[in-house]
Amino acid sequence: MTHRVIIVGGGFGGLKAAGALKDASIRVTLVDRRNFHLFQPLLYQVATGGLSPANIAAPLRAVLRKRRNLDVVLGEVMDIDVTRREVVLRDDRIAYDSLIVATGARHHYFGHQQWELLAPGLKTVEDATRIRRQILTAFERAERTDDPSEATRCLTFVVIGGGPTGVELAGAIGELAHRTLRNNFRHIDPGQAHILLVEGENRVLPMYPPELSEKAQRSLERLGVTVLCDARVTDISEQLVTIKRGGNTGETEEIPSRTVLWAAGVRASKLGQAIARATGAELDHSGRVVVNRDCTIDGHPEIFVVGDLASHQDQDGKLLPGVAPVAIQQGRYVARVIRRRLRGKATGEFVYKDHGQMSTIGRASAVAQIGKLRLSGFVAWLAWLLVHLLQLVGFENRVLVFIQWAGNYLTRNRAARLITETSSASDEPSELPAQANASEPSGTEVAAHLSRTAHNRLAKR
Amino acid sequence: MTHRVIIVGGGFGGLKAAGALKDASIRVTLVDRRNFHLFQPLLYQVATGGLSPANIAAPLRAVLRKRRNLDVVLGEVMDIDVTRREVVLRDDRIAYDSLIVATGARHHYFGHQQWELLAPGLKTVEDATRIRRQILTAFERAERTDDPSEATRCLTFVVIGGGPTGVELAGAIGELAHRTLRNNFRHIDPGQAHILLVEGENRVLPMYPPELSEKAQRSLERLGVTVLCDARVTDISEQLVTIKRGGNTGETEEIPSRTVLWAAGVRASKLGQAIARATGAELDHSGRVVVNRDCTIDGHPEIFVVGDLASHQDQDGKLLPGVAPVAIQQGRYVARVIRRRLRGKATGEFVYKDHGQMSTIGRASAVAQIGKLRLSGFVAWLAWLLVHLLQLVGFENRVLVFIQWAGNYLTRNRAARLITETSSASDEPSELPAQANASEPSGTEVAAHLSRTAHNRLAKR
Repeated sequence: MTHRVIIVGGGFGGLKAAGALKDASIRVTLVDRRNFHLFQPLLYQVATGGLSPANIAAPLRAVLRKRRNLDVVLGEVMDIDVTRREVVLRDDRIAYDSLIVATGARHHYFGHQQWELLAPGLKTVEDATRIRRQILTAFERAERTDDPSEATRCLTFVVIGGGPTGVELAGAIGELAHRTLRNNFRHIDPGQAHILLVEGENRVLPMYPPELSEKAQRSLERLGVTVLCDARVTDISEQLVTIKRGGNTGETEEIPSRTVLWAAGVRASKLGQAIARATGAELDHSGRVVVNRDCTIDGHPEIFVVGDLASHQDQDGKLLPGVAPVAIQQGRYVARVIRRRLRGKATGEFVYKDHGQMSTIGRASAVAQIGKLRLSGFVAWLAWLLVHLLQLVGFENRVLVFIQWAGNYLTRNRAARLITETSSASDEPSELPAQANASEPSGTEVAAHLSRTAHNRLAKR
Repeated sequence: MTHRVIIVGGGFGGLKAAGALKDASIRVTLVDRRNFHLFQPLLYQVATGGLSPANIAAPLRAVLRKRRNLDVVLGEVMDIDVTRREVVLRDDRIAYDSLIVATGARHHYFGHQQWELLAPGLKTVEDATRIRRQILTAFERAERTDDPSEATRCLTFVVIGGGPTGVELAGAIGELAHRTLRNNFRHIDPGQAHILLVEGENRVLPMYPPELSEKAQRSLERLGVTVLCDARVTDISEQLVTIKRGGNTGETEEIPSRTVLWAAGVRASKLGQAIARATGAELDHSGRVVVNRDCTIDGHPEIFVVGDLASHQDQDGKLLPGVAPVAIQQGRYVARVIRRRLRGKATGEFVYKDHGQMSTIGRASAVAQIGKLRLSGFVAWLAWLLVHLLQLVGFENRVLVFIQWAGNYLTRNRAARLITETSSASDEPSELPAQANASEPSGTEVAAHLSRTAHNRLAKR
């Protein structure tokens, strides 16, 4: 009788587990809401026009097509029935013997959910194209307005959160403004753009050694990014961000800005709560499921939680970070546990091998910590390039991304600078429901808005 | 005093004209609703997951950044004030001395506008990603359903219109179903998909010599496409297409299908009507502005209309076809006329140099007519590849597209097979208004729908 494994989530953890569950005696079902695996570490490149979504996504069915014992199901898991051992899709149920949950995390606004519309986070392809549209539209607005303060608002970009994502995003926007868009406009100088990176701690990349944080900050400043440490956001509106410097005693500062991006907090995906309800598992402060050393849940050895959804303490009681390598290693480990169990074998607890961490800052600089080794600048960037290229699923993607990067590097051009929308952009207002949303104007709405701003310079000519 | 030229539309005609208006004494303003030039001939590749939008789009500001006498305006032209010689944007006006209108065409449903939602056409990036989503979703639905007739509906693709776009689209879907998606599914065989190409004339590609039409049809059939000639659509619904074979006397036929794509008719963009109102210019049956041999409008030598928006008869009174080469040559010609006028020189009328035509059918076959020369099969495909690569704006795009094509060719994989949506795909229902639209379900809605269909096969295991 075949052992039925259901994997929920086709991210790093889930995909790795699926890949490692080859045994003919096992039948794997991978359930995901999307039909592709997304290489999230490069999502900021899509958000800043450096790469296309397809460059960093691989269709799950294509990646796993050779796996005859594996079934990909495009569906959304609503709940888990631990007594009947079934995964509950919207109107459907699938039975499992072993369950691997790897649905990851989403952004978290610390109780300010209303900020989501004003300060989008970067987790999905749609987030990325939305942010790309917002950034490019801001420059277009600045080009068209005659109101200097509006121009300033448009050319001020605030990135909240000085972790890897925030640093990479701010650096890429710096690139875009100071290099890529040079000479693209006639009435503004994109180089005048203000890019602010707001970090709560006293340095960016707090998880790195201090000297690397410092190097990162200097690289950011070279790209025209202003780093504000010991600062936290107290309010966000359409045109204004309010931050407080240096703790509660510090003075508040108002920054006029039309583009605020969120890289501050993540929260485990909602399925964690369902698991807690069903199994009585504990959730940590950010909604992650507290798991045992073998990635299982107390009392449910058949349920594994891996990746960003799991709150996993290592031998020293240190919480494992929410990074791809952890998810990948956990996915591989869990697959091994299941395979060995079927052969009646026990498996030791999960041990995370930390191969270090690296973050890029703009076009040719990065910081990297590999064991004792600490790299920065161009060398680190090359290392970063190599590692990320090798990790990209699908040979073709690697070549494409490399070419595109090479192109970006040589031409300082970003090929994917498209303001795209959903509503059909055919010549007349289409019958399709146009997306009407302040924070993401459709191309047509952008055009409309821009037209509204006076345009005397041209008219006077 | 500088001569102010306004170009409306950054397509082939407009971009070519802008490129040719280099004189320092001329100040050019290019107005477009989108921030990029789109290489429409390859749009069907995006619709079938072969290329990414950015591969066939080039940001206008980037393409024209070196042109100091040129200003790109992202805006929508609502009307033209010929007496004051101003272009009217939504809430703005820009003055011109010479005006070049090149806003092209959109699809046309011959008075059945309600079909637009049921049978999307292929003109914009959004059309392409929407069609891509619809095609891929159909396969996902077929995979999940237990109802054989629903499966048939999902696996039946009807392309309406046997011109170049229809042929290329049908061929690419054939590729996708019979080659690319092979082994991607567990419960269906994508090779079982029915792809129907519905053409009103008695052969596909009626504008080609008959023997090439025949060759094209055979190539299509090799890709599993069924060609229905002398057939026209009488009705389209969510799940059914009704066609009538062989004229009005012919019998009607009902084809159950969830995916109907429109490649049948185009109509000139709406601005044509504004021009007619303002200048008294005549519009032809498909809304195109009837222009003189020098691309101007009677009584308005300062207004030029080029490309798909123009109804232009050549010396022999033959109407010029709505293809890129015509627009490109007209754009170049008009720029020349304007430059020579400023030097007090006259210019002869526009003469279209027909370098032939080519259409691709799937991965390695095409038909081409170059003067007397008639190519078909692989040779024609290579010629097609070369011509289209060379025409792609932006060096990087060419390399990228070539690599991607090479990848597709070798791996028979289509890297860009992404079902993307607009609504944020974060883990919980986002606050962004999700696009609720029968004909283009969001990824989440797809998942939901799929879940609704029973899934006993898996449950039973």
